Amino acid sequence: MEKPFDLLALGEILLRLSPPGEERLVRGNLLEKQIGGAELNVASGVSLLGLETGMLSKIPETSIGLFAQNSLRFCGVSDAYLAYDKSEEARLGIYYYEKGAYPRKPGVVYDRKHTSMTRVECSDFDPAIYKSTKCFHTSGITLALGEASRNTTIELIKRFKAQGALISFDVNFRGNLWTGEEAKKCIEQILPYVDIFFCSEDTARLTFGKEGDVRAMMKSFAKDYPISVMASTKRVVHSPKKHSFSSVIYDAKADVYYEEEGYHNIEVIDRIGSGDAYVAGALYGLLSENGNCQKALKYGNAYSAVKNTIPGDMPSLNLEEIEDIIKDHENTGYHSEMKR
Amino acid sequence: MEKPFDLLALGEILLRLSPPGEERLVRGNLLEKQIGGAELNVASGVSLLGLETGMLSKIPETSIGLFAQNSLRFCGVSDAYLAYDKSEEARLGIYYYEKGAYPRKPGVVYDRKHTSMTRVECSDFDPAIYKSTKCFHTSGITLALGEASRNTTIELIKRFKAQGALISFDVNFRGNLWTGEEAKKCIEQILPYVDIFFCSEDTARLTFGKEGDVRAMMKSFAKDYPISVMASTKRVVHSPKKHSFSSVIYDAKADVYYEEEGYHNIEVIDRIGSGDAYVAGALYGLLSENGNCQKALKYGNAYSAVKNTIPGDMPSLNLEEIEDIIKDHENTGYHSEMKR
Amino acid sequence: MEKPFDLLALGEILLRLSPPGEERLVRGNLLEKQIGGAELNVASGVSLLGLETGMLSKIPETSIGLFAQNSLRFCGVSDAYLAYDKSEEARLGIYYYEKGAYPRKPGVVYDRKHTSMTRVECSDFDPAIYKSTKCFHTSGITLALGEASRNTTIELIKRFKAQGALISFDVNFRGNLWTGEEAKKCIEQILPYVDIFFCSEDTARLTFGKEGDVRAMMKSFAKDYPISVMASTKRVVHSPKKHSFSSVIYDAKADVYYEEEGYHNIEVIDRIGSGDAYVAGALYGLLSENGNCQKALKYGNAYSAVKNTIPGDMPSLNLEEIEDIIKDHENTGYHSEMKR
Amino acid sequence: MEKPFDLLALGEILLRLSPPGEERLVRGNLLEKQIGGAELNVASGVSLLGLETGMLSKIPETSIGLFAQNSLRFCGVSDAYLAYDKSEEARLGIYYYEKGAYPRKPGVVYDRKHTSMTRVECSDFDPAIYKSTKCFHTSGITLALGEASRNTTIELIKRFKAQGALISFDVNFRGNLWTGEEAKKCIEQILPYVDIFFCSEDTARLTFGKEGDVRAMMKSFAKDYPISVMASTKRVVHSPKKHSFSSVIYDAKADVYYEEEGYHNIEVIDRIGSGDAYVAGALYGLLSENGNCQKALKYGNAYSAVKNTIPGDMPSLNLEEIEDIIKDHENTGYHSEMKR
Amino acid sequence: MEKPFDLLALGEILLRLSPPGEERLVRGNLLEKQIGGAELNVASGVSLLGLETGMLSKIPETSIGLFAQNSLRFCGVSDAYLAYDKSEEARLGIYYYEKGAYPRKPGVVYDRKHTSMTRVECSDFDPAIYKSTKCFHTSGITLALGEASRNTTIELIKRFKAQGALISFDVNFRGNLWTGEEAKKCIEQILPYVDIFFCSEDTARLTFGKEGDVRAMMKSFAKDYPISVMASTKRVVHSPKKHSFSSVIYDAKADVYYEEEGYHNIEVIDRIGSGDAYVAGALYGLLSENGNCQKALKYGNAYSAVKNTIPGDMPSLNLEEIEDIIKDHENTGYHSEMKR
Amino acid sequence: MEKPFDLLALGEILLRLSPPGEERLVRGNLLEKQIGGAELNVASGVSLLGLETGMLSKIPETSIGLFAQNSLRFCGVSDAYLAYDKSEEARLGIYYYEKGAYPRKPGVVYDRKHTSMTRVECSDFDPAIYKSTKCFHTSGITLALGEASRNTTIELIKRFKAQGALISFDVNFRGNLWTGEEAKKCIEQILPYVDIFFCSEDTARLTFGKEGDVRAMMKSFAKDYPISVMASTKRVVHSPKKHSFSSVIYDAKADVYYEEEGYHNIEVIDRIGSGDAYVAGALYGLLSENGNCQKALKYGNAYSAVKNTIPGDMPSLNLEEIEDIIKDHENTGYHSEMKR
Repeated sequence: MEKPFDLLALGEILLRLSPPGEERLVRGNLLEKQIGGAELNVASGVSLLGLETGMLSKIPETSIGLFAQNSLRFCGVSDAYLAYDKSEEARLGIYYYEKGAYPRKPGVVYDRKHTSMTRVECSDFDPAIYKSTKCFHTSGITLALGEASRNTTIELIKRFKAQGALISFDVNFRGNLWTGEEAKKCIEQILPYVDIFFCSEDTARLTFGKEGDVRAMMKSFAKDYPISVMASTKRVVHSPKKHSFSSVIYDAKADVYYEEEGYHNIEVIDRIGSGDAYVAGALYGLLSENGNCQKALKYGNAYSAVKNTIPGDMPSLNLEEIEDIIKDHENTGYHSEMKR
Repeated sequence: MEKPFDLLALGEILLRLSPPGEERLVRGNLLEKQIGGAELNVASGVSLLGLETGMLSKIPETSIGLFAQNSLRFCGVSDAYLAYDKSEEARLGIYYYEKGAYPRKPGVVYDRKHTSMTRVECSDFDPAIYKSTKCFHTSGITLALGEASRNTTIELIKRFKAQGALISFDVNFRGNLWTGEEAKKCIEQILPYVDIFFCSEDTARLTFGKEGDVRAMMKSFAKDYPISVMASTKRVVHSPKKHSFSSVIYDAKADVYYEEEGYHNIEVIDRIGSGDAYVAGALYGLLSENGNCQKALKYGNAYSAVKNTIPGDMPSLNLEEIEDIIKDHENTGYHSEMKR
Repeated sequence: MEKPFDLLALGEILLRLSPPGEERLVRGNLLEKQIGGAELNVASGVSLLGLETGMLSKIPETSIGLFAQNSLRFCGVSDAYLAYDKSEEARLGIYYYEKGAYPRKPGVVYDRKHTSMTRVECSDFDPAIYKSTKCFHTSGITLALGEASRNTTIELIKRFKAQGALISFDVNFRGNLWTGEEAKKCIEQILPYVDIFFCSEDTARLTFGKEGDVRAMMKSFAKDYPISVMASTKRVVHSPKKHSFSSVIYDAKADVYYEEEGYHNIEVIDRIGSGDAYVAGALYGLLSENGNCQKALKYGNAYSAVKNTIPGDMPSLNLEEIEDIIKDHENTGYHSEMKR
Repeated sequence: MEKPFDLLALGEILLRLSPPGEERLVRGNLLEKQIGGAELNVASGVSLLGLETGMLSKIPETSIGLFAQNSLRFCGVSDAYLAYDKSEEARLGIYYYEKGAYPRKPGVVYDRKHTSMTRVECSDFDPAIYKSTKCFHTSGITLALGEASRNTTIELIKRFKAQGALISFDVNFRGNLWTGEEAKKCIEQILPYVDIFFCSEDTARLTFGKEGDVRAMMKSFAKDYPISVMASTKRVVHSPKKHSFSSVIYDAKADVYYEEEGYHNIEVIDRIGSGDAYVAGALYGLLSENGNCQKALKYGNAYSAVKNTIPGDMPSLNLEEIEDIIKDHENTGYHSEMKR
Repeated sequence: MEKPFDLLALGEILLRLSPPGEERLVRGNLLEKQIGGAELNVASGVSLLGLETGMLSKIPETSIGLFAQNSLRFCGVSDAYLAYDKSEEARLGIYYYEKGAYPRKPGVVYDRKHTSMTRVECSDFDPAIYKSTKCFHTSGITLALGEASRNTTIELIKRFKAQGALISFDVNFRGNLWTGEEAKKCIEQILPYVDIFFCSEDTARLTFGKEGDVRAMMKSFAKDYPISVMASTKRVVHSPKKHSFSSVIYDAKADVYYEEEGYHNIEVIDRIGSGDAYVAGALYGLLSENGNCQKALKYGNAYSAVKNTIPGDMPSLNLEEIEDIIKDHENTGYHSEMKR
Repeated sequence: MEKPFDLLALGEILLRLSPPGEERLVRGNLLEKQIGGAELNVASGVSLLGLETGMLSKIPETSIGLFAQNSLRFCGVSDAYLAYDKSEEARLGIYYYEKGAYPRKPGVVYDRKHTSMTRVECSDFDPAIYKSTKCFHTSGITLALGEASRNTTIELIKRFKAQGALISFDVNFRGNLWTGEEAKKCIEQILPYVDIFFCSEDTARLTFGKEGDVRAMMKSFAKDYPISVMASTKRVVHSPKKHSFSSVIYDAKADVYYEEEGYHNIEVIDRIGSGDAYVAGALYGLLSENGNCQKALKYGNAYSAVKNTIPGDMPSLNLEEIEDIIKDHENTGYHSEMKR
C-alpha cells in the first residue's frame, strides 16, 4: 500500500512578525504577520516542488493558532496531524525579524519560551503517522526546545525508522538555544538513525570537533554513523544585501562528492529560511528520484539561492520556476531577462 | 519639597497587536503594533490632561522592550522608573485584539504568561519612588498576574501609603486571570490602604457579594474601609459599535453622591481602555483640584466616552479637547459640528 | 466505505479586487486581492464549521491561478479536484467591488467573460469524484456562465445523483448573466434531481411565477418536484450599513415550516457572500445532523447575519464562534460584550 | 463662437493631508495626500457631471505643485489657466483633517498663510479667459485670503461679468479667515455683479443681519441686489457619522421657491466638501438646462448628500450615478440594494 | 492653422496590477493599481517633457474604464479621443507584474484577450483626428492584438500619413502575441509609411533577417524603405536590479550615426516601460527641434535610463529633471548628490 | 550641583513628509510622516547613546505641533524647554523628501518659510536653561533661518558659554538658505565662542576660503579661533544607493589628528541626517569620555555610516548596536552575519 506522504516534518511553527519595508522594530506602527519555522520551511519547500508533505507540531487553539493552521495549508502543507493545545498555557512562539543593510546586520528577537510545542508528546499524534510517510525530517532546533520536545523527537525518530521511513536531520545549530556540547551529545544519540544528514562546515568543526576540509569531515561522519547522504552548505556574506552560496553533497554509500559552481552575488531580500530551502531542494532531489545526489545538489543550490529573494521564511516558488532558474544557471548562452 | 510626580502607576505594559480595519486575526498579513495595559492607560490619560506621571513596570531589554519604552514617552509617561529584564526569560506580554460588529463581538487573545512583569520585585525600583508622587495607582490585574507581582504590589501599596501618597485602586476584575473568590480575598487585604476606589456595580455584587442598588453598595464599601472616594461606571452596549456610558461617584467623607446625564449612542471605534480613561479623567479631577468629585465625574465621563472613538488603548486627547467635549455635553444651545 | 467529502461544490472561482477602506474604484492606488464565488463561499463556510469540502472548478495555470488555489486551501477547501487550464485563453474571472454608504449603494463591476470556467467539461474531473461526496452543491450562476458550463453542470448533477449524493441547488438569480425566462427553463430541467433547494421569495414569484405567500410558494415547488428541503431568505436593507435578516425552511417530507426571530440591525461591513453563508450554515445543519431543519435554520441565519460583518466573500468564522452567536441570539439574559 | 468652458472657478488649491482610517493627527506614521479647496471642489463636481471646467489659481512650481496640477486633471478640471509661482516664497496651502465620532468632532488644522495664491494677480492669467466661459464661480474664502487676492477676485468678477459670464458666488463664511463684519462689507461690494448666490440661513442671519425665515431672507437679498437665483442649504448633524440635508432654491426672477424632501440619516464618511458638492450640483442644473431651478435643487441635494459618503474633498461620482441616486430618492417602490 | 497635438498615439491601455514591495503574485493581499501600455507610456513621456499628446484607444465604460481615463489625464495625456465600449463584452486588458532579484527574474502574467481594444475600428474616432497632430505613433503590439485592431491600425497609419503627420513606429516584438514571421509580414506592409522607426538589434536580426552590425542593419532598412530616422537600443542586464543602457540613432537622410557613452549600472526599480521612455525621449528630441537626432539620442538615453528608477509603466519626470540628468551624465566635474 | 542635561540643542523641528517605498512626490496617495531637523537629529542621536538631551525650539500649539512634541520624546529628547506659538501665524516647517536611484538623485522640497521657529526669541526659554547643560549645540541652519532666529542664536551661544557650557557648532552650509558670504560673515562672529567645530572640507575651502589639504585647513581654523576640537567628514557618493564615508578629527589643544579606515560601500536607504549622526557620535565620544577624540572618531564614523541604513532623519540605534558595528568594523576575523 502506497504511503500518502512523501515527507512529514516535526518542528515548531512560529509566528513571524517583521516591520514592513526598511522600518525598525523599535519604531513603527505595523508588523507583517507570517508563519515560519525551520522544519515547516522544509516541508513547504518540498510541497511546492510537487511532493506531499505534512507537519507534526503542537499549536494553541486560538485565533493565532488558527492563523498558523490556515497559513500552513496556504503553503501547501497538510494540517492533518497538527496537535492542538487547549490549555491555559497554550501559546505560539514568536520571532521578530528586521532586515539589515551594511553596516547594520539583520536582527532577530525571539519570544519562544513556554510554547505549546515545548510540551509536545508522542501521544499528541495519531499512531497512523509512522506508516504514512516515506521520509521523516526534523532538526536540532526541535531537540533544543526543551526536555519534553527532545524526548518526543528522539522517540519519534525511532518509531518512524522502525516503520521504514528515511530519517532526515539538519543540525541547524543555534547558540541561543543550547551549547555546542549539549548539541553534540544529544545529536550523537540520534545519528545512528539518520539517513540524510545536513551539517555546515563550521558546525562540523566547532561543535563536533571534526578536522580537515569539508570533504574529510563529511567522510568522518559517514565512517562513524550509517549515514547515506550528507550535505554541507557554504554562504559567503558580502553584505546583508549580497550573498554567494554553494554546497557539497557526499554520497556515502558510493563514496562520491557532488559540487557545482555556486550562485554569486545573490540579491538578498530576506535571507531567513534559505538554509531550509536548501534542505527542501535537496530532499526533493533525493525523494523524487531515488536518492539522486546530483539532482539534490542542483535543486538544493537553486532553491536556497532564490529563497533569499523572497520575503518571509518560505520559498514560495514552484517546480517550473526552480527549473527555469537551474537552466539559466547552467546555460551560458542567450536568455531572456523577464518571464512573460 | 515638591513631589515631582502627580501619579505613579504600577502595571504590566503589553504589546497590543490588532489587524487593520475590519480584518480578522485568523487571516490577513498585517498587525497594528501599539502598547497598552490598564494602568499605563490611566497614567497616559492623566498625563495628557497636564499632570506628571510615570510608570513602574518591568520590560525586556530587547527591541520590543525598547519599542514599549519609546512609546511610553510618546504617550507622555515617564520611563524613568522602568525596570529592565536582561534574563533569557525576558518577555513582554502580548494581546491580540479584533473589532466586532453586531452580531459579532470584539475578541481578545492573550499571550501574557511568563512575562518579565510577573517576576517584578520591589528591588527592581529605586527607593526614591516612594517619596516622589502624590498618588499611586494600580489595579486588580497586577494583583492577578501571579504570586510575585501580587506580593510586590501589596508591598508597594504599603510603602507608598507610608510616604503619604494617595492610593488609587481599580478592581478591573478579569475572570481569565483569577476567580472572583481569589480576587475578593486579595483585594480585601489592600482595601484598608485605598483612598480612591473604582469598582463596577456588577463586580461589587458578584465578586464582593454586595447588595442593594449602586449607591447602597458604595456606602457599604465605605463603611467597611477607610475609602475617601469611590466611583462606579455603567456601560450599556447597544451593539459593538454603539454604547452609552455613565457613572456615579461617592464622596464617602461628605456622604454625597455625584451623577450627571450620561453620554448616549457613543460611536464606538475601539472600546478597549475606555474604563481606564474613566479612571484617568476621575483621577485628574481629584488630583488637579483637591479631591473635587464633581470635576472627577465630568472629566471621567467625558474621557471615557471619547476614548471609545480613539483606536488603541490610550485616550490621546488633551485637556482642551476634553473641555470642549464637556462644554458640548452640557450645552443645549448652538455649537459647531467641526473644530477648525 | 466512507465517502471522504461531505460536500463537493461546482462553481467559478473569481478574483475579487476591492479598494481598501472607503476608497472608490475610479480612484486610488491599491486593490485588496481576495478570492470568492458563490459556490466556493458555500464550500468554505461548510468547511469552517467542521465538515470536509472540495471545489470543482477550472482555473488558469498562472501565478493568479496559483493564488486562487493557495487561497482555497487557506479557506479550508480541498484543491484536489481543481482542473487547470493551460491554454493561451486561460483566465480567471474578476470582479471589482466597492462598498456603499447611504445614499450611495455598493457597486460591482464584473469582468468574467471568456474565463477558463466557461469551458469546463466533465472530462476535466477525475471520475472518482462522483462516489466521493455525500452532497453536491451548485448554483444558477454556474448554469448561466455559458453553454459549456451549463451542459457540464447538468451532466454532473445527474452523475452525482446516480452515485447517491444529495443534490443541493441555490437559484442565485443574476439578471446580468441571463434572463428570468432562460433561468426558469434551465432550472426546471434540473429540479427533478434536486434534494435541497434554495430560492428567495422574490425569485420564486418573479422568475418562477409562483403566487401566494412564501409558505405557499415553497409548498408549490415541493408539489411539482421531489425536493426534500427548501429554504427561502429575506433581507431588509435599512441602509448599505444596516440590514436585517431572516429565513423560512420547509421540510417538504414532513410538511413542516421552520422560522425564528431574525437578526435585526446587523452592522454590515461587507454584504457580499451573506446569502452563500446562509446556504453554508443550512447545509451544515442538514449534513451534520441528518437533515435537521431546525439546526439548518439556526446555523443558516446566524452564519448569514455574521458574514455581513466580515470583509470579503467568505465567512471566516468557526463552529465555536457561530455557536456563541446563536447562544447570544437566543438568550435574553446577561452576556458579556467581548470575547476574552 | 462657442465658449470652450462652461465654468471657470477662481480659488486656492490646498494640499489636504489626513490620517488613514480613524487615526489621529497627533499620532501615526502616515498621511493621505489629496487636493481640495472650495472652488476646486465645485469645478470638479461640475466637470464630473459632464460640463467643461477649468481652474484659475496660483501654485508653486515644485513637485508638490505638480502633484496638485496632475490631480486637478485627474478630477476632470482643466489646468490650462493655472499660474505658477517660481519665487522662493512659493508654497501650496495645506490643511490637515481628522474624522470625528460622537462625542468627538472632526477637526481641521490650517497651514495656509503666505501661500502663492495669496499673491495672485490679474496679470497671472491669460486675458483670453474672460471670453472663454459661460459662468465664473468663486467664494468668500478667496476674498478672505488677503488683500491681493481680494482685489484680484473683485477685478476678475467685473471682467468676467463684462464679457457676459454668469457670476456665481458662495459666501462660505469662515470665521478663522475674517470677521463677519469684514465679510459683509466686502461681499456687499460684489453682490451687484452676482447672478447665482449661495448663502446659508445662519450666515444670512448672523453675518448679513437678515431677519425672518429662510424664504424671507432670500427675498430680501433679491430685493437689494440683481440676483437671479439664490440657494440656501440646511445640514442637521445628528452625530459626526450621521447627518440630514436639505435646501431651498429661490428663483428671484419668477419669485418661486423650490424645495423637496431632504436626505435623512446620511451615512457620513467625510463631510468636507459636501457644501461645495451642493454648489456643483446646483450649477450643473442651472448651466445644463438654462437656469432650471428644479433641476438645480435635485442635483444639488443629491450631490451634496452623496459627497458625504466619499473620502476626500471632491465628489468623484458621475452623472449616471447621481441620476440613479435621484431616482432612488424619488422612488418609493422596489429598488435593488446593489449596483451590478 | 496650428495642429493642436504634437503626438497622437494608438494603443491599448492596460490595467497594471502589481504586488507592493517585494511580494509575489501567488501570495499577499494587496495589488498596486496603475495603468500602462506601450503607446500610452510614449505619449505620457512626450507630454511630461512639454508637448501636447493624446491617446487613441477603446476602453470600457465602467468604473475601471473611468479609472483609466482619469489616470490618463493625470499623466498628462488628453482623453479627448478615447472611444468607449458600452457593450456587455467591454473589458480593459490587465497585466500582473512582479519584480525580480537575482537569481529570480521579473515576471508578467497577461490577461488581455477579448478586450475592448481588440475590437477598435476607425469609426470609433472623430475624423478630425487626422488633421490634428504633427506625429502619429503606434507599435507592433497594437498590430498583434488581433485582426480588427491590425486592420484599424494600418488604415489609421494611411489616413494620418495622408494628412501630413509624421509616422512613428516601434516594432516592440512580443513573442507571446504573434510569431516573428507574422510580425515581419505585417510590419513590412506598413514600413513604406514610416518616418521614424524603432527596432532593436536582436529583432532586426532574428525577425527581419538582417545581417551585419547594428549600423549595417539600420542602413539596410533605410535602403528598403523611405525611413527618415531609425533608432536601436541596447540593454545589458547585469541582474534584475542592475542594467546598463545605450542606443544608436541613424539619420538616414544625412547618412549619419549618433552614439554616446551609455548609462552604466542603472539602479533598476522597475524596468517596465523603459523602452517606451526611450521612444518618448527620442520623439521629444525630434519633434521639439525639427528632427534633431543628437537631441533625440540624449533625451532618449536619459529618459530610458531614469525610467528604470520609477515604479510603474510611465516615466513621471519632467523636462527640468531630464535635463539635470543629462548634465550630470555629460559632466565629469563636481555635482551635488541631492536636489534641494 | 550636577547639570541635568549633557546636551541642549537649538534648532528648527521640521515635519518630514516622504512617499512610501520608491514612490514620487508628484504622484501617489500617501506620505510618511516623521519629524527631523539637523539639531534635533544630533540631540536624538546623543540621547540614544545614553546621555541626557533636550531641545530648544518653537513649535505651533496645534495637533501638528503636538505630534512633533510627542515624537521628540519618542526619540529620547526632552520636550521640557520647547516654546509654543499660539499665534495665528504659528506653523511648523515642512520638508518633502523623495529617494533617488542612479541616475536619479534624491530630492527635497522645502516649505519652511514663516515658521514659528523663525520668530524665536530668548524670552521664549526659561532662564534656567543656561546652567542646566554641559554642552550647547546648534548649526548654521538656525543662523540662516532669518534675522530673529540669528540674533537669538548668537545671544544664546553667549549666555550658555557664560555659564560654562561647551559650545558645539556645525556649519551645515545650505545654499538655499543663505549665500556663502553671508554664512562666512555670520559664523565668524560666533567662532570665538565655539569649542567643538564641525565643518566639511568643501565648505572650509569654498565658503571660508581656506587652502591646502583638510589637515592644513583645520589647523588654520584653530589658529584663528580658540577651538578645542574640529571635525571634518568626507562622503563619496558612488550612487544614490551606495556611499563611502570617513572623517578626520583634529585635537587642536594637543595638535593631533585622528583618522581611521572609512566605511566603504554603505548600503544607503536614507542618507538624510547621516551628517547629523556623525555629529551625534562625535559629541557622544567627547562628552562621555572627557574630550576623547579617538572615541569621537570611532563613534562618529560608525553612527554616520549606519544612519544611512535607517529610514527617516534620526539614527534610532542604541549604544550596544553602535558598539557591535564598531567591533565588526575593526575586526577582520570571524563574525556572524545576523544578530540573534
